[in-house]
Amino acid sequence: MATKIDLNLLRKAVRSGLLRRLLAKLQPGEIAPLLAELSPSELRAVVIELCRHKRLADTLYALPGDLLGDVISHLDAQVLGDALRSLKLDEATRLLRRLDESLQARVLSAAEPHTAQQLGRLLRYPPDSAGGRMLPSFVAVKPQTTVGEAISTIRSAGPDTPLFYLYVVGEEQQIVGVASLSQLVRTADDVQIGEIMAREVVAVSPLADQEEVARLVVRRNILAVPVVEDGKLLGLVTIDDVLEVLEQEATEDMYNMAGLSEGDRVFSSPQRSLLKRLPWNALNLGTSLIAATVVGFFEGTIDKLVALAVFMPVVAGIGGNTGNQTLTVIIRGITLGELEFSSAWRAMIKEIVVGLSIGVLLGGATAGIAYLWKGNGMLGLVVGMAMVLNLCIAALVGTAIPLSLKRFGLDPALGGSILVTMFTDVFGFLCFLGLATLFMPYLI
Amino acid sequence: MATKIDLNLLRKAVRSGLLRRLLAKLQPGEIAPLLAELSPSELRAVVIELCRHKRLADTLYALPGDLLGDVISHLDAQVLGDALRSLKLDEATRLLRRLDESLQARVLSAAEPHTAQQLGRLLRYPPDSAGGRMLPSFVAVKPQTTVGEAISTIRSAGPDTPLFYLYVVGEEQQIVGVASLSQLVRTADDVQIGEIMAREVVAVSPLADQEEVARLVVRRNILAVPVVEDGKLLGLVTIDDVLEVLEQEATEDMYNMAGLSEGDRVFSSPQRSLLKRLPWNALNLGTSLIAATVVGFFEGTIDKLVALAVFMPVVAGIGGNTGNQTLTVIIRGITLGELEFSSAWRAMIKEIVVGLSIGVLLGGATAGIAYLWKGNGMLGLVVGMAMVLNLCIAALVGTAIPLSLKRFGLDPALGGSILVTMFTDVFGFLCFLGLATLFMPYLI
Repeated sequence: MATKIDLNLLRKAVRSGLLRRLLAKLQPGEIAPLLAELSPSELRAVVIELCRHKRLADTLYALPGDLLGDVISHLDAQVLGDALRSLKLDEATRLLRRLDESLQARVLSAAEPHTAQQLGRLLRYPPDSAGGRMLPSFVAVKPQTTVGEAISTIRSAGPDTPLFYLYVVGEEQQIVGVASLSQLVRTADDVQIGEIMAREVVAVSPLADQEEVARLVVRRNILAVPVVEDGKLLGLVTIDDVLEVLEQEATEDMYNMAGLSEGDRVFSSPQRSLLKRLPWNALNLGTSLIAATVVGFFEGTIDKLVALAVFMPVVAGIGGNTGNQTLTVIIRGITLGELEFSSAWRAMIKEIVVGLSIGVLLGGATAGIAYLWKGNGMLGLVVGMAMVLNLCIAALVGTAIPLSLKRFGLDPALGGSILVTMFTDVFGFLCFLGLATLFMPYLI
Repeated sequence: MATKIDLNLLRKAVRSGLLRRLLAKLQPGEIAPLLAELSPSELRAVVIELCRHKRLADTLYALPGDLLGDVISHLDAQVLGDALRSLKLDEATRLLRRLDESLQARVLSAAEPHTAQQLGRLLRYPPDSAGGRMLPSFVAVKPQTTVGEAISTIRSAGPDTPLFYLYVVGEEQQIVGVASLSQLVRTADDVQIGEIMAREVVAVSPLADQEEVARLVVRRNILAVPVVEDGKLLGLVTIDDVLEVLEQEATEDMYNMAGLSEGDRVFSSPQRSLLKRLPWNALNLGTSLIAATVVGFFEGTIDKLVALAVFMPVVAGIGGNTGNQTLTVIIRGITLGELEFSSAWRAMIKEIVVGLSIGVLLGGATAGIAYLWKGNGMLGLVVGMAMVLNLCIAALVGTAIPLSLKRFGLDPALGGSILVTMFTDVFGFLCFLGLATLFMPYLI
């Protein structure tokens, strides 16, 4: 196996001191699965090297949950403490969430007391919330502070504090304004912040959903958004988190549509991928059997005219594909904020018009082909009519499924392809074989 | 139609002076299609209002190419000039690209001479390149400049100049270093920039692909990347462009997989969507007919045992779905940089192992169901074997198709689902009906 060679290479690099060069060439996703197979002392060397290059967070994050626990439990308190210091607080929080409580406690006890306290507080927010994503460090000043004084305050802030904006707070720490760093640089030193700050502050609650926060940041074209509770500033969600959330969201949409679960990546172990996919495949077996049952009703019809079996894949195939086109347009429209419930009817009518038109055009073509191939004009007519009907159904379910899922608070993409294909298979066979049964006297 | 009501509402708002409030409530994708239906004077009012709120670029961008031309040709020189001033240079460039040459010339003649010259230069780069995306404004100083002097330079820069980093250039304008704005603010005024600047500058060529530029910015966790030719700084690609490129890329991957073309959105006109989808659906009709031909070879076999037709959708359905799971994992892996050609074999072997395992489990289950349903053990065995073989093929083509497309310089997602489904249909029917023909004496 190729994995073995890489593991040996990594081991050899640990021994020969060429680790740094090797690690620089590997992606986090390539290093991560090897970590769990190293001996504790080898692991220690690799982790120390990754810390040094700020690549530890990415690598650990690429580890599946069970392996992450293994790796963490092999690190001693000192290396853990160093590792934590090399991570930003939000990165550390996200990694900690993936450990069980005893391991969380072990890591927290290796952290400095102040860090441990901050991490403990962040862990209390839901993982997909603004609170769970935020970095609890920021620079805030009073409105009467001058630009010169504000710049001094910024100079004394820690190196990990995000410095995109200067937040302005009132007597009770409530947020009253914001000024950008470039505004500060452009303004004379003796001007008061209160004079240049914007009073309308875009802010989010700590319980706001991370996707909504990300969309807000993109829409407003800002670099960081303050997380505010009862008017008080708690922390910031910054642009790097937003990028991560958007990537994650795009992966999630594609995965949900295809019937895949989070954490099933190219180089996840085969066992892991199998376990993640199997429930979806079992669901798919169920939906296929429903379609098979429909065909079963019409065994007598097929027995009379076997040519019907030949056109079954055409009616079902075009239906499934057209349904998936609609599904993709609708899901992407929801994600990008182009489609709201209020305009759902308009979207559905449009898709049905398109589906119907495709149905008439392709159905007509298929009818002609069926006639030429089998010399049976009536068979062509039945195939064509079935396609027209099925493509209308395809447009209907392709729009209705994601919108209904969203209405019930679920991800609009969840199992999309499997569900759409079930409907187009079932209705496709029902229309096609049903019409064939009806017109059987004219077919044979 | 709902569109009519919105159009009337918009018209009423233009007349009653409530335009501002109405526009604030509508998404760019909702306003855009209505623009083309307004009279020139109404259009003028809406465009002026959108300019005022910096929403013109988004709205015009949401217009399909043909309507964009219509709208632009109805605006007079003064409104065009104002509109151009309200857009950033990179936004204006991207809009101009979508116009034909005579309209481009008309817009450029309405611009100020300096702007027109810059726009002309930007238009010469390919649209998907760093040069085509860049904003040709930046702040650059010499290394011996002090922090205090640099801050004065920044103060005199135009309001549209992105101020994330200060670039440091040598005597011949070649880029030699970079300092972040937060570094400047944190450093005393009399320190020379040369002392605090980073000498390793992440930069891209103007011809670099926009997706690679976006991935670089994400990987390096920076806010802007300089575009450099022959060592000289030409402009910057900033984080807001990166966000847009990443969104566009995610849409493209999902669209390509489903057989959809760019510009086919939820609220594109039905005609437009139909024209964009039809070639893909015609391709799909072709692939379905190939599958139908395979079934056609075995009409005699089906005629002997009609129950075979009942299990055709199961063999094909599970194959298609499993192939799409593999396809999605591989495409997302390529996009996120987790998968390179060098590790393609490892990925393929893993997927085949997973496919084979799912095949054995679901094939076994289906064999049992077929036996119980039709009381034919041999039929069950044939269905089961066909599923095992088909799921191996599904894993193989799900990996091979995107990697081959990438090897030929095409988008790895292009037509993915249609192609995978073709292979799993054709091979599924071939295995299933072929095995049935072979074992026919034991089947009936």
